[in-house]
Amino acid sequence: MADAEFWYEFASTYSYPAALRVGALAEARGVALGWRPFLLGPIFAAHGWRDSPFNIYPAKGRYMWRDLERTCEAMGVPLRRPEPFPQSSLLAARVALALQGEDRAAFSREVYRAEFGRGLPIADRTTLSALLAACGVDPAPALERAETDANKAALKAECAMAAEIGIVGAPSIVTADGEVFWGNDRLEQALDWAARGREGDATTGAG
Amino acid sequence: MADAEFWYEFASTYSYPAALRVGALAEARGVALGWRPFLLGPIFAAHGWRDSPFNIYPAKGRYMWRDLERTCEAMGVPLRRPEPFPQSSLLAARVALALQGEDRAAFSREVYRAEFGRGLPIADRTTLSALLAACGVDPAPALERAETDANKAALKAECAMAAEIGIVGAPSIVTADGEVFWGNDRLEQALDWAARGREGDATTGAG
Repeated sequence: MADAEFWYEFASTYSYPAALRVGALAEARGVALGWRPFLLGPIFAAHGWRDSPFNIYPAKGRYMWRDLERTCEAMGVPLRRPEPFPQSSLLAARVALALQGEDRAAFSREVYRAEFGRGLPIADRTTLSALLAACGVDPAPALERAETDANKAALKAECAMAAEIGIVGAPSIVTADGEVFWGNDRLEQALDWAARGREGDATTGAG
Repeated sequence: MADAEFWYEFASTYSYPAALRVGALAEARGVALGWRPFLLGPIFAAHGWRDSPFNIYPAKGRYMWRDLERTCEAMGVPLRRPEPFPQSSLLAARVALALQGEDRAAFSREVYRAEFGRGLPIADRTTLSALLAACGVDPAPALERAETDANKAALKAECAMAAEIGIVGAPSIVTADGEVFWGNDRLEQALDWAARGREGDATTGAG
């Protein structure tokens, strides 16, 4: 089992810098990281939101785009706003969930780079096929696995679990002991917490 | 003029750790800091919210209280939830605005320590009088100045200005060049930005 799970949504802006940062941060701390794609739609719907809160509340949207711009500048990564925003993330999430291990992480980073680094639409099969190929994954069978009933049901179950464990936004990191940390600005704190959890396990022999 | 303005709301939970941290962080960077009490009510009302979003959206509230608990633990400061939450912050904000300089900062920190460190109600004159006295400020004239029409109008103007410059939550830091940074977890970034702005001024001789 992973020491920490990285929960992300492809339509989520702050998940972009987080997805690019989180792997190295986990590795530096010896934390085994699970990648958990999910959809915020059902959680937002429970709030009565049928759109991104950054569109529903324009002042928050303006703040977020400027804040993200500063974050990306500091990281030295490009930022381009995809149109429309938010992008439909359903198919990308299904594809990511149908992949395993490093393929899932690599594909997820490629999706974010395309969407927010180059401003490309990510909802269609052509774009996703190209991104899969760029990761060395054969696109046709991956897309086929993504659209099986079993995989669709698995993604639905992931979304229900996200709500169940108290996730309210993306990105979030959930540690093995059930702590939830929300936001790109909580990655270090979350992974430090997970690393301390590992040390505790080692001491008690429960690891 | 200050290099950076710290905008805070006495009902805001994350403003509590921020108010305790921000002074030393600014001083360490040589940043002149202004303290700007305001009310989020008018900004939230524009979102259609008549209560704290942490009450309107219970999952967000649960997340926030746990997150704040971790933050306070890491800082070594106590956390007690005042009842009811949120507290009415109108009178405290008026009193803070009627004070100047270090008196305002000291009183504001005392209000937060009482409210979130000891769980005390902060809406009444008796509590606020005791906090003023603890700061070495004569309570009666301070409360009298707080409730003049001029001071009430000044607070209203502060709230309008907060919305105007794009503040969407508290705490926020606004730098001299107009950048807005929202959140206790943005203090360092905001003050680093303000410090770089000072250096720029010194170079061009515009300081």
